[in-house]
Amino acid sequence: MSTNTDSDADARDRLLDLAAEFYDQFASGDVPSMQIPTRTKSNIEYDEEHGVWVYGDRHSTRSANNVSGAKKLLKAIYVIDFLAQQLDQDRSSTLRELYYLSESWDLDAAQFSDQDESNQLIEDLEIVSDVTREDFHMRPEESGATLMGPLHLREQTRRGERDIHCQEDVGAGGYQIPNNPDTIEFLDHSADFVLCVETGGMRDRLVENGFDEAFNTIVVHLKGQPARATRRITRRLRDELDLPVVVFTDGDPWSYRIFASVAYGSIKSAHLSEYLATPQAQFIGIQPTDIVEYDLPTDPLSKSDVNALQSELDDPRFQSDYWIEQIERQLDIEKKAEQQALASRGLDFVTDTYLPERLSDMGVL
Amino acid sequence: MSTNTDSDADARDRLLDLAAEFYDQFASGDVPSMQIPTRTKSNIEYDEEHGVWVYGDRHSTRSANNVSGAKKLLKAIYVIDFLAQQLDQDRSSTLRELYYLSESWDLDAAQFSDQDESNQLIEDLEIVSDVTREDFHMRPEESGATLMGPLHLREQTRRGERDIHCQEDVGAGGYQIPNNPDTIEFLDHSADFVLCVETGGMRDRLVENGFDEAFNTIVVHLKGQPARATRRITRRLRDELDLPVVVFTDGDPWSYRIFASVAYGSIKSAHLSEYLATPQAQFIGIQPTDIVEYDLPTDPLSKSDVNALQSELDDPRFQSDYWIEQIERQLDIEKKAEQQALASRGLDFVTDTYLPERLSDMGVL
Repeated sequence: MSTNTDSDADARDRLLDLAAEFYDQFASGDVPSMQIPTRTKSNIEYDEEHGVWVYGDRHSTRSANNVSGAKKLLKAIYVIDFLAQQLDQDRSSTLRELYYLSESWDLDAAQFSDQDESNQLIEDLEIVSDVTREDFHMRPEESGATLMGPLHLREQTRRGERDIHCQEDVGAGGYQIPNNPDTIEFLDHSADFVLCVETGGMRDRLVENGFDEAFNTIVVHLKGQPARATRRITRRLRDELDLPVVVFTDGDPWSYRIFASVAYGSIKSAHLSEYLATPQAQFIGIQPTDIVEYDLPTDPLSKSDVNALQSELDDPRFQSDYWIEQIERQLDIEKKAEQQALASRGLDFVTDTYLPERLSDMGVL
Repeated sequence: MSTNTDSDADARDRLLDLAAEFYDQFASGDVPSMQIPTRTKSNIEYDEEHGVWVYGDRHSTRSANNVSGAKKLLKAIYVIDFLAQQLDQDRSSTLRELYYLSESWDLDAAQFSDQDESNQLIEDLEIVSDVTREDFHMRPEESGATLMGPLHLREQTRRGERDIHCQEDVGAGGYQIPNNPDTIEFLDHSADFVLCVETGGMRDRLVENGFDEAFNTIVVHLKGQPARATRRITRRLRDELDLPVVVFTDGDPWSYRIFASVAYGSIKSAHLSEYLATPQAQFIGIQPTDIVEYDLPTDPLSKSDVNALQSELDDPRFQSDYWIEQIERQLDIEKKAEQQALASRGLDFVTDTYLPERLSDMGVL
């Protein structure tokens, strides 16, 4: 059965429009070409209206006026043909499968020489068609993480609808977020906010301590740098259920990037910010100021930590008074702390003291 | 509520027995000490009766006859005290939390200087007490993966029992295996075999193609090197449901180690082989001979691939005619292939042709 027919037809139309453009360029005697935004740190800018970072005006051109450019467009046309068929047949595939599938194409010049090339082409097509790869039915390689909380949802699967309550109908591991969370419809909930958690150890602590029940919280496990599916469902929980989103990570520069990826998206995928990013997300900690205030066990900053913090001072996503203060404070104290360092105050400290205090400071409780 | 009271009491007793031994050693005027099997490749041997690799006879001694040894035993006693309390209160914690918790202990000399030290001590206690860390209520940091197939199970959670059918009651992502799968009871099933799959992309392919339905298969996602929970549930599916287990990975030396870890356990955890390993598990592929027979797209072996293959020729877990032939064949053809390379023959080739052919060769179908 088809799970999402309207958006399938729309995605297919947009892909065929791209192919039609090449056709028109040929027909009018022009050399076919495709314009793509330049994807560098200097070409992302803040979109005030939507509160996200998007590509600026600089573009690069893929033109068939040279052999390498012509091959790129040829491959794009083969991929468009494959994707249109895939949508017709309601199939899906991974980026890696696409790469290997190209070996079966009749024209050797259309085959990919490595996976970077096919990955890149799918990203290009996402950008120029304004359709996400999930809507092309390209499945990500990494699966989404899990969710636990007072949320009743309906997932459309190939095998029919599944109605699942994310506390009552799941085991201790929680609800596994599917690769394409747009197959989910939120039916009902009694949540007050969403708490995204970096590590599995802390996620398990919150669930064991019943934090999701006591505080009406939807706990989303980020599993380190979050997968697209995890970021997408977080965005939808914010938009559709109007819930505050807070992000709880380790207190080091790599974890601040995890927060930034939830809140603002990544430079590589600025074209997807409106789909994946949750600009209203707030950082709960571990803050450098928490390290001092709660006297947490720490490790010294390594050279690469210091470099990463300094690079964040130049990152457009961290240009707020809040972040500049936190980052400068951390460079000053020269220390970092993990989420689970809160256990040095006892296993209940995080749920009885730290999170309630921080949530109330932030105005979420 | 308690989820597993009998084994809790048993684990607690065994820990207290260890502490009592130290007491008796003191009482009889001996210097307290603890004997631990040497954990090296040269000290694991094949246990014919159980079909798994276990530690040999060589031991090392932790004795209080020097300051460093005395500190180790002191820390062991503090940890035993903590674990006994944790079991009493039906709480649980992660290895990392234990490390940080030690900062709250009253005696500075009992605190851990780094996480390696506390991890190591828990492994020592597992070995000498013959109780797994799951039964100490130490949760692993990494969560288990997912399962999809015709299996109806009951999971005991802190919030009560959950009855879940692993096709009908779960979304496309499947059933999330809990950290301690011994909280699961298998109620009913109509499965013919268990298929453990290395990559998420291939797991999703099998589910999309309905392989679990068409072939009555329980598909277990290994997610690379499998977590303890994933290996444990695989072992239990074999033992309790009497199902054949086959393992499907990429065709390279790192993936053969994933197979070996499912089938025989790792050198580091040979003391857990009877709990975690499934010696009856069979390797389905990608075999080096498949690369040739199915003409799969390949990558050349890197220098480190060649070294890993050569080291496997010395690894006791690969000393069968089958593995020696496969490894020598691969060194000969100097190529490796990924699972998803089967997509070069079309997206249905793996489920329509490759797996049925291999399963029938192996006598599983």
